[in-house]
Amino acid sequence: MSYGLTPSHTNVQVNRRYKHFDWLYARLVERFPVISVPHLPEKQATGRFEEDFISKRRKGLIWWMNHMTSHPVLAHCHVFQHFLTCGPDEKAWKLGKRKAERDDLVGANFFLTISPPEVPLDLQEVESKVEGFRSFTKRMDENIIVVNNSITEFARKQMTGFKKEYQKVGQSFRVLSQAFELDQQAYSAGLNKALAYTGETYETIGEYFAEQPRHDLDPISDLLDIYRGHLANFPDIVDVQKGALTKVKDCPQEESALHQRCNIISCATLAEIQHFHRTRVRDFRAQMQHHLQQQISFFQKITAKLEDALQRYDEQ
Amino acid sequence: MSYGLTPSHTNVQVNRRYKHFDWLYARLVERFPVISVPHLPEKQATGRFEEDFISKRRKGLIWWMNHMTSHPVLAHCHVFQHFLTCGPDEKAWKLGKRKAERDDLVGANFFLTISPPEVPLDLQEVESKVEGFRSFTKRMDENIIVVNNSITEFARKQMTGFKKEYQKVGQSFRVLSQAFELDQQAYSAGLNKALAYTGETYETIGEYFAEQPRHDLDPISDLLDIYRGHLANFPDIVDVQKGALTKVKDCPQEESALHQRCNIISCATLAEIQHFHRTRVRDFRAQMQHHLQQQISFFQKITAKLEDALQRYDEQ
Repeated sequence: MSYGLTPSHTNVQVNRRYKHFDWLYARLVERFPVISVPHLPEKQATGRFEEDFISKRRKGLIWWMNHMTSHPVLAHCHVFQHFLTCGPDEKAWKLGKRKAERDDLVGANFFLTISPPEVPLDLQEVESKVEGFRSFTKRMDENIIVVNNSITEFARKQMTGFKKEYQKVGQSFRVLSQAFELDQQAYSAGLNKALAYTGETYETIGEYFAEQPRHDLDPISDLLDIYRGHLANFPDIVDVQKGALTKVKDCPQEESALHQRCNIISCATLAEIQHFHRTRVRDFRAQMQHHLQQQISFFQKITAKLEDALQRYDEQ
Repeated sequence: MSYGLTPSHTNVQVNRRYKHFDWLYARLVERFPVISVPHLPEKQATGRFEEDFISKRRKGLIWWMNHMTSHPVLAHCHVFQHFLTCGPDEKAWKLGKRKAERDDLVGANFFLTISPPEVPLDLQEVESKVEGFRSFTKRMDENIIVVNNSITEFARKQMTGFKKEYQKVGQSFRVLSQAFELDQQAYSAGLNKALAYTGETYETIGEYFAEQPRHDLDPISDLLDIYRGHLANFPDIVDVQKGALTKVKDCPQEESALHQRCNIISCATLAEIQHFHRTRVRDFRAQMQHHLQQQISFFQKITAKLEDALQRYDEQ
């Protein structure tokens, strides 16, 4: 199974298998110490939900690619561009692959590629911002669990409880219409049919409730999962910056190479934090909009169904 | 506490207390052996639900009066007209009251007031129709219990389970917005507010679910209660007719007074059965229409609330 990617700057489709993503991920992680490279969606389908799994993985990869292409550093790095643009020529692919694997500017050397602004950052301010971000990610991670539990439970209730309640009411209206059908006079027939139809309507609404979480709760749940993985990268990033800061604190010369290096690491870390927040706001806004639009369609669908049932009572 | 009644044929309001209804009910029951005079709603409020109780009794009395005024015999009988039209003159009231209590044409004598059609009914056909009605009322009574259990349970679930689920989701969205509020940058503020508002919205929708049964399930439940009482009158009515039929079967002369009497009783019984079906169809159609209209308004209210929440995500 391979995934077709068509970068907007080349408009030429390339095909990549999961193992290529996996290889790219490994390169990026070793290359960028203070950039969060989100985890790839899981590789292996487990058990019987294979179709759901494949669809979820595809959505996960789409989100992953969107994150990559909107990231100012990741999007432009050589290995990612090679991944995005190298055509079916096996030799060219291997060449680029070897070049990326031999790259020296990985890990700590990444910082050599960064030119910081002329005025160095106030390291106390950096410390407070990074500490604030550490609290933020911890709190966000905790609260994501709360939200995920609530919406998972809500989905479960809709698929079982809500469905069952609507269907029981629907069945009871049908039962009433069955009693009424013992009276076969002409003026009864319209009500009997309308009542039976109302019964069906409630059973259908029960089905609607059961199907709905796939459309509006599962996507939130998927995003929360993606963000849990994403958030898990930040403790290490924060540690890199903290380590640099600790060393600087022990060094009295303000203009030292250590200070300069810490300044670069801090610039990169704050830029990454900023990018995280921007994509977070973008992703959660889009997901909540999608959720509410789906909910609105859902309740409109129910309303239309009920209006249809109501009309049946006018037919004599 | 008295109830103001304004008959459409006099347009003059009279005031009657519950005890006057009770007195009228007793007169009607003793007077009409094959007419179902529905039970009055219960007199006494028990315990703490007094306000609900009074409102339910008022609705019950309105249904009772509608049933009376649409019944071709009950509506025109002297005692009911006295009840409907006698003004505040205490002497006139007592005079009519005494006259009604001394009425001779009660019980079996009621049949003396009926002129049957010239061609007597086919008694076998009558027997089959009455038997059919007996099955009908039995089945309707049984199925009313099923419906009442379902909608009572549905109301309970909406007031507790559904409400709780929506509120838990609402709270979890708030919790997420609280985590997000740790990031105080300008581009975050819009999402934070919109998320908090979505949380409130779900809590409000939970309240809507909890309130809704009062508007669309309780009225059905009330109607079902009224009909259970109404249906309970019919076994006695059917027995009167069956008793007459049994006597006739033992009597060989087709033109006997016994045959004539049985014909009259059968005419009256069939007319009453017919009237029951007509009012049943009218009452259940109206109640189901009311129910569906209320449900439609309910889901439209939810949709509007969600649309309002969705709009908040456009404000940056």
